[in-house]
Amino acid sequence: MADSVYRVTELVGVSTSSWEDAARSAIETASSTLRDLRVAEIVKLDLTIEDGKVARFRARLNVSFKYEPGA
Amino acid sequence: MADSVYRVTELVGVSTSSWEDAARSAIETASSTLRDLRVAEIVKLDLTIEDGKVARFRARLNVSFKYEPGA
Amino acid sequence: MADSVYRVTELVGVSTSSWEDAARSAIETASSTLRDLRVAEIVKLDLTIEDGKVARFRARLNVSFKYEPGA
Amino acid sequence: MADSVYRVTELVGVSTSSWEDAARSAIETASSTLRDLRVAEIVKLDLTIEDGKVARFRARLNVSFKYEPGA
Amino acid sequence: MADSVYRVTELVGVSTSSWEDAARSAIETASSTLRDLRVAEIVKLDLTIEDGKVARFRARLNVSFKYEPGA
Amino acid sequence: MADSVYRVTELVGVSTSSWEDAARSAIETASSTLRDLRVAEIVKLDLTIEDGKVARFRARLNVSFKYEPGA
Amino acid sequence: MADSVYRVTELVGVSTSSWEDAARSAIETASSTLRDLRVAEIVKLDLTIEDGKVARFRARLNVSFKYEPGA
Amino acid sequence: MADSVYRVTELVGVSTSSWEDAARSAIETASSTLRDLRVAEIVKLDLTIEDGKVARFRARLNVSFKYEPGA
Amino acid sequence: MADSVYRVTELVGVSTSSWEDAARSAIETASSTLRDLRVAEIVKLDLTIEDGKVARFRARLNVSFKYEPGA
Amino acid sequence: MADSVYRVTELVGVSTSSWEDAARSAIETASSTLRDLRVAEIVKLDLTIEDGKVARFRARLNVSFKYEPGA
Amino acid sequence: MADSVYRVTELVGVSTSSWEDAARSAIETASSTLRDLRVAEIVKLDLTIEDGKVARFRARLNVSFKYEPGA
Amino acid sequence: MADSVYRVTELVGVSTSSWEDAARSAIETASSTLRDLRVAEIVKLDLTIEDGKVARFRARLNVSFKYEPGA
Repeated sequence: MADSVYRVTELVGVSTSSWEDAARSAIETASSTLRDLRVAEIVKLDLTIEDGKVARFRARLNVSFKYEPGA
Repeated sequence: MADSVYRVTELVGVSTSSWEDAARSAIETASSTLRDLRVAEIVKLDLTIEDGKVARFRARLNVSFKYEPGA
Repeated sequence: MADSVYRVTELVGVSTSSWEDAARSAIETASSTLRDLRVAEIVKLDLTIEDGKVARFRARLNVSFKYEPGA
Repeated sequence: MADSVYRVTELVGVSTSSWEDAARSAIETASSTLRDLRVAEIVKLDLTIEDGKVARFRARLNVSFKYEPGA
Repeated sequence: MADSVYRVTELVGVSTSSWEDAARSAIETASSTLRDLRVAEIVKLDLTIEDGKVARFRARLNVSFKYEPGA
Repeated sequence: MADSVYRVTELVGVSTSSWEDAARSAIETASSTLRDLRVAEIVKLDLTIEDGKVARFRARLNVSFKYEPGA
Repeated sequence: MADSVYRVTELVGVSTSSWEDAARSAIETASSTLRDLRVAEIVKLDLTIEDGKVARFRARLNVSFKYEPGA
Repeated sequence: MADSVYRVTELVGVSTSSWEDAARSAIETASSTLRDLRVAEIVKLDLTIEDGKVARFRARLNVSFKYEPGA
Repeated sequence: MADSVYRVTELVGVSTSSWEDAARSAIETASSTLRDLRVAEIVKLDLTIEDGKVARFRARLNVSFKYEPGA
Repeated sequence: MADSVYRVTELVGVSTSSWEDAARSAIETASSTLRDLRVAEIVKLDLTIEDGKVARFRARLNVSFKYEPGA
Repeated sequence: MADSVYRVTELVGVSTSSWEDAARSAIETASSTLRDLRVAEIVKLDLTIEDGKVARFRARLNVSFKYEPGA
Repeated sequence: MADSVYRVTELVGVSTSSWEDAARSAIETASSTLRDLRVAEIVKLDLTIEDGKVARFRARLNVSFKYEPGA
């Protein structure tokens, strides 16, 4: 029977240009090893500061993927 | 006397490029029928994934507008 | 003895183009008077509407900085 | 069988004198068109300021009413 | 280009037997008038009591559907 | 004069079969001593596990009842 | 040594005129049996509706008092 | 260019008669030194008790104002 | 010395019949590889809709298990 | 049949030395009258100040125990 | 009449030994310039890590003090 | 290009003496296999009770570390 189980992982992506790029970076890195990613929810946005200027945008997001025991 | 009543509606805008565009899309669609929109608060940001890449950015937002009984 | 005390202030930046610019504007204005800013957390995103279109993006953020008694 | 479905709407009432009046204003306006209102929960209280004084009290509240498809 | 706008409505379903039935009742009532329902999130579960026994299970849920201006 | 005061108590019901039964068990036990129970809100659902299987469903709920000083 | 233990109880006061009166009613009823009440925090405000008008204001509040084993 | 930066401060007003007066007291005291106050959000309501009666109503609120570096 | 470290993982179980079954499915799948599962907390309940009817119940839950470095 | 009902009570412990001692004080006071205490969750930590120094640490915690009607 | 206005400030204290010391450090530093501090609430606890070991405990807390316009 | 991706894991440390030790235990166990740990946020504190006394302090914390696909 086909009811699946998913697992949720929290990732943080980082970008010097935007929160969209930060999220994209996290998703593309994760998708090389996690199967069947479909939706990611933003759980936190923040940014780092250097010399009084914004240095990096960071997006923390929850991503769910097929749970495969043993993986 | 002029104290008004407002109603709050929750909308979800979608965009392939950014959360700002997703929000803009929701506002512009709504403003064709809702009167006197002034502020919208983001209540959730997420994104959809296809083939391991970000496909769409989605912004869920609360928008308040003049309540007109019967409308 | 070197254990420091920090203070957290909440700022709101505003931009006609993006939430990233709104945040950047708040950080750069604050960094002229606050010392040792390192991280800022977004606590709220919203936007203002004029004539049925998005007018301004606003980002509210917490920024922490060295606490200097008397300052 | 008679198990009903309700719908929840968020309203904002405004008053120059109190949050109770703000809530009352929202309820009385809504009750002209919504059937079977019974309880409303406050979800936010705020106020507007003009010339350094409180101008209006605003109460945001959730009100549930009988859902009638097509209405 | 076809990026859509969705609207989120909050419904309360009621059932004498289970929260699953309460949710099902809300969804089936709503689907007669709302287009393209896909996911509903539970935001609150409660129950009513009569004569010291559980009388009804109630499920409050957010359901999003295609936004059609004018509808 | 008839304005009453209520007290809210938090209970946890437990069942081997469902969260509905867990809630029912808490309500029926409480109703033997508490007067005028009308609504109970679920504040947490969890479950216990034994030997890799779900053993018990637990429902934590807030129940309000007439406050009688001295009781 | 005299470090005390307090207990927190949740009460709901009801009033036809204001949330302040609703809170006052809960406090005065409780103070006849609970010792050493000092602060009460509002955790929820709502109201009941009859015939399309506000009927009662209700204030739910946490009140802490000296814990006396056996009481 | 005119995009402004705002700062958010949290104040607590106190009154023997109502939460509205408590909020008003905080706003009027603050407006003597803070520029361009426009909206204040209530973040907490509580009350103090003396001799078994409500002594003071307290309203904690966030108020935002123009940020002026060096001020 | 025997004080253990646990790790918390978030899973999503899916069922066509109930949230209890959805949770059970997640627990039984996980227990084939995770050691010493004892309690799981529900963090979100939702459901998917197809053709205007509830298709699947989904339960998201936190489960904690013995942390074994290297596993 | 053995499925039990528990009741949750909120206590505040106080200590001049640490939050651990504050919690311990609440638990040991309660355990003289409440049966079968097993877990307590911290819901709030705060502290009181006298003459510019920390005077007492306070821990507010939820403790659940067997519910015995009539007790 | 003398109803006061308070202001709430968020501080972060840091310590190599405990969260109690971190809080104490923040309070003692602040009390040299802020008048009439009485209670501080913990809003966040975290810690920093260096070389795989806990380096510093940090306590973020809200402290309220008499508001003096112009100060 | 060097923008990294981090992963966030939730751990629970346990100690018979303090929450600081509970957190330390979780960090030191994790640091044997996770690279580049820098900050951990406390998400929950609780304690277990045996024979009416506090038996163990438990600290649940989020720790973020470099995400290495395949690890």
